[in-house]
Amino acid sequence: MELLKQRILKDGKVKEGNILKTDSFLNHCMDITLLQEIGKEFKRRFADCNVNKILTIEASGIGIAAITAQYFGNVDVIFAKKSQSKNLDGEILTAPVISYTRGRKFEVNVAKRFLNEGDNVLIIDDFLAHGQALQGLIKIVNDSPANIVGCGIVIEKGFQSGGEILRNQGINLQSLAIIDSIENGEIKFRD
Amino acid sequence: MELLKQRILKDGKVKEGNILKTDSFLNHCMDITLLQEIGKEFKRRFADCNVNKILTIEASGIGIAAITAQYFGNVDVIFAKKSQSKNLDGEILTAPVISYTRGRKFEVNVAKRFLNEGDNVLIIDDFLAHGQALQGLIKIVNDSPANIVGCGIVIEKGFQSGGEILRNQGINLQSLAIIDSIENGEIKFRD
Repeated sequence: MELLKQRILKDGKVKEGNILKTDSFLNHCMDITLLQEIGKEFKRRFADCNVNKILTIEASGIGIAAITAQYFGNVDVIFAKKSQSKNLDGEILTAPVISYTRGRKFEVNVAKRFLNEGDNVLIIDDFLAHGQALQGLIKIVNDSPANIVGCGIVIEKGFQSGGEILRNQGINLQSLAIIDSIENGEIKFRD
Repeated sequence: MELLKQRILKDGKVKEGNILKTDSFLNHCMDITLLQEIGKEFKRRFADCNVNKILTIEASGIGIAAITAQYFGNVDVIFAKKSQSKNLDGEILTAPVISYTRGRKFEVNVAKRFLNEGDNVLIIDDFLAHGQALQGLIKIVNDSPANIVGCGIVIEKGFQSGGEILRNQGINLQSLAIIDSIENGEIKFRD
């Protein structure tokens, strides 16, 4: 997605350790116009999948998923919780996740009653690196009667293993920008 | 907001201890069409405030704020983090918050560079009870050069003190549904 790549080059900040920060437009301050274009692109890529639910994970995925849902006919958006929140009610589907970013273990939790027979679930998140959180979401959908149509990611770190593992699992993974390398502050995208 | 009140009566669940759960439409599974109507109502109530930024807090506020921002001309949405996230970059404004729901202390954090001179900030959140999180967000904006135009809340628990305290502070607090009591499972709204 060219608009996104240009925005990453313009406003993304490469920090020490070649870490990319996108907090000025994606995951702290959100550019809603950009999110709308991202939503339209996800719709284009998953147009024929009869998506009737979007699943994401708190917190950075929620805004992207909510805006995106509008282009799929206002399908419901479920966001997995990283704790056994008091907002969760009824039987819970859970999966353990190791966060490399945060250097800790956590759980993802979704109330079972929101993932049902005949549901075609699109999983959305902002970043894909090692893919741990996404694997947790996939496990949760696989533990339910619902069907996964694919995963829509805004930015994939192609130099980490998450994307390759998911594609090898046969997941329809659509990443709007894939970064192949960040070296000396220079971002190189996959064509 | 009548549509919201009817939805709370229809799909809200009153649990032990007269706790209201809205996870099927607001803060776990999000009804995007309802969120659009909520966004339009916030726009109606803050139409003359020249809102150019919306501030909310992870996680439940994010979807509401992102959808609402569209009715204010796609203003940027900033979501405060409850931890010193690695997504945060640069100088941070922070406020301590005591969560009665979670029974613990946490911090709210916003990167200072997103709250600037001339910004008219609308603060949005899903629930208002004791108002601790909202007070944290207000402190953060007051510690910045930006201006608070008001607070937009989806559901206020009018039988708890947060709303009264905020109104006494002179905050333009607009709650789309105010619950005056929940007794024996029965929800009573303020007129």
